[in-house]
Amino acid sequence: MTRLELPVASSTPLLDVQPTGTFKGRHVLSVRDLTREDLAYVLRVAHQMRVMVGLVGSVDLLKGRLLANLFYEPSTRTSASFNAAMKRLGGDVVSINEVRYSSVSKGETLQDTIRTLESYVDVVVLRHHQVGAAAEAAAVARKPIINAGDGAGEHPTQALLDLFTIVEELGAAEGLTVTMLGDLRYGRTVHSLSRLLALYGVKLRFVSPPALRMPESVLRDLAARGAEWSVHEDLEEVVGRSDVLYVTRVQKERFEDPAAYEAVAGSYVIDRALMARTKERMIVMHPFPRVGEILPEVDDDPRAAYFRQIEYGLFVRMALLAMVLGRA
Amino acid sequence: MTRLELPVASSTPLLDVQPTGTFKGRHVLSVRDLTREDLAYVLRVAHQMRVMVGLVGSVDLLKGRLLANLFYEPSTRTSASFNAAMKRLGGDVVSINEVRYSSVSKGETLQDTIRTLESYVDVVVLRHHQVGAAAEAAAVARKPIINAGDGAGEHPTQALLDLFTIVEELGAAEGLTVTMLGDLRYGRTVHSLSRLLALYGVKLRFVSPPALRMPESVLRDLAARGAEWSVHEDLEEVVGRSDVLYVTRVQKERFEDPAAYEAVAGSYVIDRALMARTKERMIVMHPFPRVGEILPEVDDDPRAAYFRQIEYGLFVRMALLAMVLGRA
Amino acid sequence: MTRLELPVASSTPLLDVQPTGTFKGRHVLSVRDLTREDLAYVLRVAHQMRVMVGLVGSVDLLKGRLLANLFYEPSTRTSASFNAAMKRLGGDVVSINEVRYSSVSKGETLQDTIRTLESYVDVVVLRHHQVGAAAEAAAVARKPIINAGDGAGEHPTQALLDLFTIVEELGAAEGLTVTMLGDLRYGRTVHSLSRLLALYGVKLRFVSPPALRMPESVLRDLAARGAEWSVHEDLEEVVGRSDVLYVTRVQKERFEDPAAYEAVAGSYVIDRALMARTKERMIVMHPFPRVGEILPEVDDDPRAAYFRQIEYGLFVRMALLAMVLGRA
Repeated sequence: MTRLELPVASSTPLLDVQPTGTFKGRHVLSVRDLTREDLAYVLRVAHQMRVMVGLVGSVDLLKGRLLANLFYEPSTRTSASFNAAMKRLGGDVVSINEVRYSSVSKGETLQDTIRTLESYVDVVVLRHHQVGAAAEAAAVARKPIINAGDGAGEHPTQALLDLFTIVEELGAAEGLTVTMLGDLRYGRTVHSLSRLLALYGVKLRFVSPPALRMPESVLRDLAARGAEWSVHEDLEEVVGRSDVLYVTRVQKERFEDPAAYEAVAGSYVIDRALMARTKERMIVMHPFPRVGEILPEVDDDPRAAYFRQIEYGLFVRMALLAMVLGRA
Repeated sequence: MTRLELPVASSTPLLDVQPTGTFKGRHVLSVRDLTREDLAYVLRVAHQMRVMVGLVGSVDLLKGRLLANLFYEPSTRTSASFNAAMKRLGGDVVSINEVRYSSVSKGETLQDTIRTLESYVDVVVLRHHQVGAAAEAAAVARKPIINAGDGAGEHPTQALLDLFTIVEELGAAEGLTVTMLGDLRYGRTVHSLSRLLALYGVKLRFVSPPALRMPESVLRDLAARGAEWSVHEDLEEVVGRSDVLYVTRVQKERFEDPAAYEAVAGSYVIDRALMARTKERMIVMHPFPRVGEILPEVDDDPRAAYFRQIEYGLFVRMALLAMVLGRA
Repeated sequence: MTRLELPVASSTPLLDVQPTGTFKGRHVLSVRDLTREDLAYVLRVAHQMRVMVGLVGSVDLLKGRLLANLFYEPSTRTSASFNAAMKRLGGDVVSINEVRYSSVSKGETLQDTIRTLESYVDVVVLRHHQVGAAAEAAAVARKPIINAGDGAGEHPTQALLDLFTIVEELGAAEGLTVTMLGDLRYGRTVHSLSRLLALYGVKLRFVSPPALRMPESVLRDLAARGAEWSVHEDLEEVVGRSDVLYVTRVQKERFEDPAAYEAVAGSYVIDRALMARTKERMIVMHPFPRVGEILPEVDDDPRAAYFRQIEYGLFVRMALLAMVLGRA
């Protein structure tokens, strides 16, 4: 893997996607802001990034540009993914992971912190524990803000990488049957992803214990978008017809009664025996980390897409960084 | 913003300021070490950095050079500022922010830590909680040490960026009236800055509650330097004649009696009403973070210079890094 | 110090050592895996790195490549050394130092963490508190893993830099008398180094209090390798005939009785008086940090090699990174 040098003042972009300019300087706060045209553009650039990384590893597309990775709560994988994405584009990163120890936590407003950091850098990735923090930051920012998760709110790059994984692995999202499994009530990722997939006429199958069902608000949104969906408790009802099995973690803390947790946790475990009852062409996804929902014995199955999904996240984040900085 | 590539062995510096060599390999420990000639040189290079960042964002002036950002106490903004400064010059950074967890904190002397780190890098930025730590480090170091604050001691880059802000915003420091407001007793920045400004014949107005007055030692220094200064409790006495209003935070912890704090804190708040009584051409500065001393309603006033002041800090730190490494 | 630019697709390596390819893609888990031929190759490349850094500071040999510095326990000096090594080769680093706060620590297996991170980067440096962690990581990794210490297990880059120090300082290891002093029971570095030195026919002298003697298992290994060694309590017996005096820290926590510690700690202190009784051509080494075992008064003695030893560590790590990535 060598690095392709781009002439500095090049007017010929490496990517064959012509910059539309529609993302330049734009904040990425929520997938709700994105049209199908926007999504197509993100997917196209992310695919180009995948090809580029496979061929040469890195480019100098964002050389001299700086990203501030501002994490108010730790998220190693998201932070590392943005960090690597910026660096594979030839840019560099100022990481602020230890917000809780810093002057930032001593009463300074998020808005002042954002205005401080954007004085040093060209784009800010923000992870925060409060819903709406990203929008609050964007309200004052002169540089693009990318939301890397704001509490129970949005985590748009996760939803986009999930969509990208489905499209890259299965060719297109249209007409697929996507089964989501586990904690659908509190799982932020399944809310965003199901809203996105509704735009593509995907059949959604929601499998969870009664206490962890997809919230009514999400189901209403899906109905409004004309999506076809159904609710189940037993995975067996749908597993054989699923093109995508999206598994999530059922967190013990959600249950008042530990016995209730044990009963549920065990009933949604993906193992080799279950894989034998799935379609030959399908994929298993998981937003990670996993803690027992998918057994390691499944890892070698070519349909286990969850490690590739992590790589797709890198490509999607590379795409978004290049786009908001006007280079793709 | 693209990045300007410099030929590696270039004998033509990007900056039109010819390196004098006077800063090459030198430690930056205190503003007291600096002559007016030194200061003029720092300001000139910092201005060049400002122009360069505005035009191209980054250069490769320090490509291949490494900075160790060694912070014994957290200071997000100073750390991020040096980090970005080094990277905008094409250099790279090894950050050591978690000193309290590391072997460094297990009884190793500061001097051993410095001698270890300078084996890896070309320049060290040091933040420490003890007065004199930077000088102690410099005593053994073979590479330049830049003091990024040593307890109640010095924080020379803050004083320099304050001076640079005044000069860039108002053309020159000579003959200005600079009012400093708030906690003048414990505020390290106002001590250093007032000493610097005394070199330029600035009229200094010190406004604070009696308990937080400028220390006698600083006032004696100013007298020795021939400065004109006066002490006030009421901001109204001087606000209409100030060219610079330098606001500092009054920290609750300084007061034994909470009521005394509340009384004082409220009386020095900068709001729109107060701005209406200031000169048309003046600036408001603050070393940040602020916690209520300047209301957000003032932020849109073009005379509110405190966010620009943060950017000037980037340029001053870029200048110092390039200078001590012999590239400016 | 300027940076030498290498043509990207260069077929002429900067280093005059031709890449053998034997290290490309290989894990570096233990010095036990290494043959004398391997060791000679590491030493040769490390020497080239030393020459290169002395001449130009940095190269672009690993431009566009990313290292994940994954530290489950803090080790500032090892982390900073790998960080600087990667950057002096033109590569970049994703640092994960705060594992204990992250999702990684919430029940995710080491193997999942490794598979996640290797999706972003080209090589992983791993520091872990459990013996065998590096091998466990390597079992699933598709990218090279470099062990930066796994508990009481191995720390191969420390052993290699110790060997490199001896060879660079004294010309060759063959036939030397190497005295190891202090805590030989728990000191991981002296175990690995003595095994390595046994390959070179070095005479080993082990000086420690009875409670901290070199473990039988190590002594058996040395015997099996045909090494000549002897055990002592009194440094004076061997100090005058030592070519290398390798000093280690005696940790208070190893002793049940504080008085026993005090007695021992004081008896193995290297000071100027002791140095007067050593050979004219010899070196003093220490893996650092030190806490009183070597007095600062010894630092100026040209035979005090412990600060140079830290620099040699940089060169050895540069060599290994370039080698496992197929560039040396």
